[in-house]
Amino acid sequence: MDVQGYLAERAPRVERALEAAVPPARDAPQRLHAAMRHLLFPGGKRLRPALALAAAEAVGAPPERALPVAAAVELVHTYSLVHDDLPCMDDDDERRGRPTVHVAFGEAIAVLAGDALLAAAFAVLAREESDGSAECLLGVIRDLAEAAGASRLVGGQADDLEFDPNEADPLRIESVHARKSAALIAASVVGGARLGGADAATLERLRRFGEAVGVAFQIADDLLDEDEDDGCSLVRAVGREAARARAEALLDTALRAIDTLGDRAEPLRELARFAVRRGE
Amino acid sequence: MDVQGYLAERAPRVERALEAAVPPARDAPQRLHAAMRHLLFPGGKRLRPALALAAAEAVGAPPERALPVAAAVELVHTYSLVHDDLPCMDDDDERRGRPTVHVAFGEAIAVLAGDALLAAAFAVLAREESDGSAECLLGVIRDLAEAAGASRLVGGQADDLEFDPNEADPLRIESVHARKSAALIAASVVGGARLGGADAATLERLRRFGEAVGVAFQIADDLLDEDEDDGCSLVRAVGREAARARAEALLDTALRAIDTLGDRAEPLRELARFAVRRGE
Repeated sequence: MDVQGYLAERAPRVERALEAAVPPARDAPQRLHAAMRHLLFPGGKRLRPALALAAAEAVGAPPERALPVAAAVELVHTYSLVHDDLPCMDDDDERRGRPTVHVAFGEAIAVLAGDALLAAAFAVLAREESDGSAECLLGVIRDLAEAAGASRLVGGQADDLEFDPNEADPLRIESVHARKSAALIAASVVGGARLGGADAATLERLRRFGEAVGVAFQIADDLLDEDEDDGCSLVRAVGREAARARAEALLDTALRAIDTLGDRAEPLRELARFAVRRGE
Repeated sequence: MDVQGYLAERAPRVERALEAAVPPARDAPQRLHAAMRHLLFPGGKRLRPALALAAAEAVGAPPERALPVAAAVELVHTYSLVHDDLPCMDDDDERRGRPTVHVAFGEAIAVLAGDALLAAAFAVLAREESDGSAECLLGVIRDLAEAAGASRLVGGQADDLEFDPNEADPLRIESVHARKSAALIAASVVGGARLGGADAATLERLRRFGEAVGVAFQIADDLLDEDEDDGCSLVRAVGREAARARAEALLDTALRAIDTLGDRAEPLRELARFAVRRGE
């Protein structure tokens, strides 16, 4: 399967859903809306939306069914990057070759733009016109609120900020990855499958798949990152070879968790391989 | 009716709901959890939760039905205060006689604690064990996400930050109040009534009630605030007497919007009078 082609084919629908969620400016202050859109358009790989669409496909539903989840998880991902880049956090001036939101719009507007992107994620999911029954949407909102909250994404970032750079225990490093990165990736996969009508056992398999892929994805990120002194990294703790082997083992765990899903899960498997091996 | 007694009687249930939403510490970093709880316990008047409970009562439901909304709106209110107090925003060192969250825990943890409180608000509403049908809960989540988002709470704060202190147009001042303060107060009332099973026409009346009370509440706040040079204030634009008269007119508008609701709406009316006249 051609993953780049798969991503490109699905991209326009994801972009339209994100455009609808954060339009150029309505009655809100124009600068706030411009700041919300600054990192959202153009975006990155849109990997999380692609995983949501492929998860719906993997359980036999049309991928479009997962569009509300695809938009919501990208909004949460974008909010977390805007806040992570702030001077009081990672203090980054550039992202994807452009000035970060606080450099372009000031720190106050960057905090508020992140806040508004997080609220917009839940607004997208709660819209009446969304496909999916109310029970399904409520399940997605519950998963996403947990994934974004104190025990997952925000907790992982708080731990990462205070992480001892000499920490050598791989389990402690993977625990930060699991919360800071993998929880939202798992919520993308599980949310897409929920709106695709998956049963509880399938959702549980996809959750294990998403969590393993998410940690492996973060290890792949650390392998790509040339600045190994930064934050919490398995590469620094165990070396490049062992980190690469661990990512492969996690990918294998992930693929085994969904081996009963058959051929229609092939795009989801290819996305996982792409996410974990993209640096090679 | 004794409003203080009404608030005191309902307070323990609201406190328990908030304790359950943000427990002392689970698997999240302890400092993050402590920061989330810093401004939440002890809280302020818990006016928004009281309005949610009284709105359920006003439409003939037991007030407990509105507890998920009561907790959620207080979490959103608390998150917005934590972020408003940040050095890059209003730069406040004290609130309710105690150090603000960023003074007590540092700026990075204060940003993250606010983020986690916002996520927790949606988690509370999406919990399966909540009362109310999934459709009702989804409606509450939609209202709250809109009230917290770019065109309401966050947009009002963005406008307030850049507000020209010489602005004398009362309509422009009230537009900031409507978004920064009244939208969340209206969401408290409408959300409580939604979980109380109100029909669409009643929800619309309660929305108008909440929006008018919310703007009047903010004017009352400005009347109580001794530092009139701060931010956007109707008192500075039109003087104390005219501002007090405007608050009374808005209270009257609010009460007339719900005059068909009968005696069981009396606690809601009393809370509105208390909110608007508390400085007198």
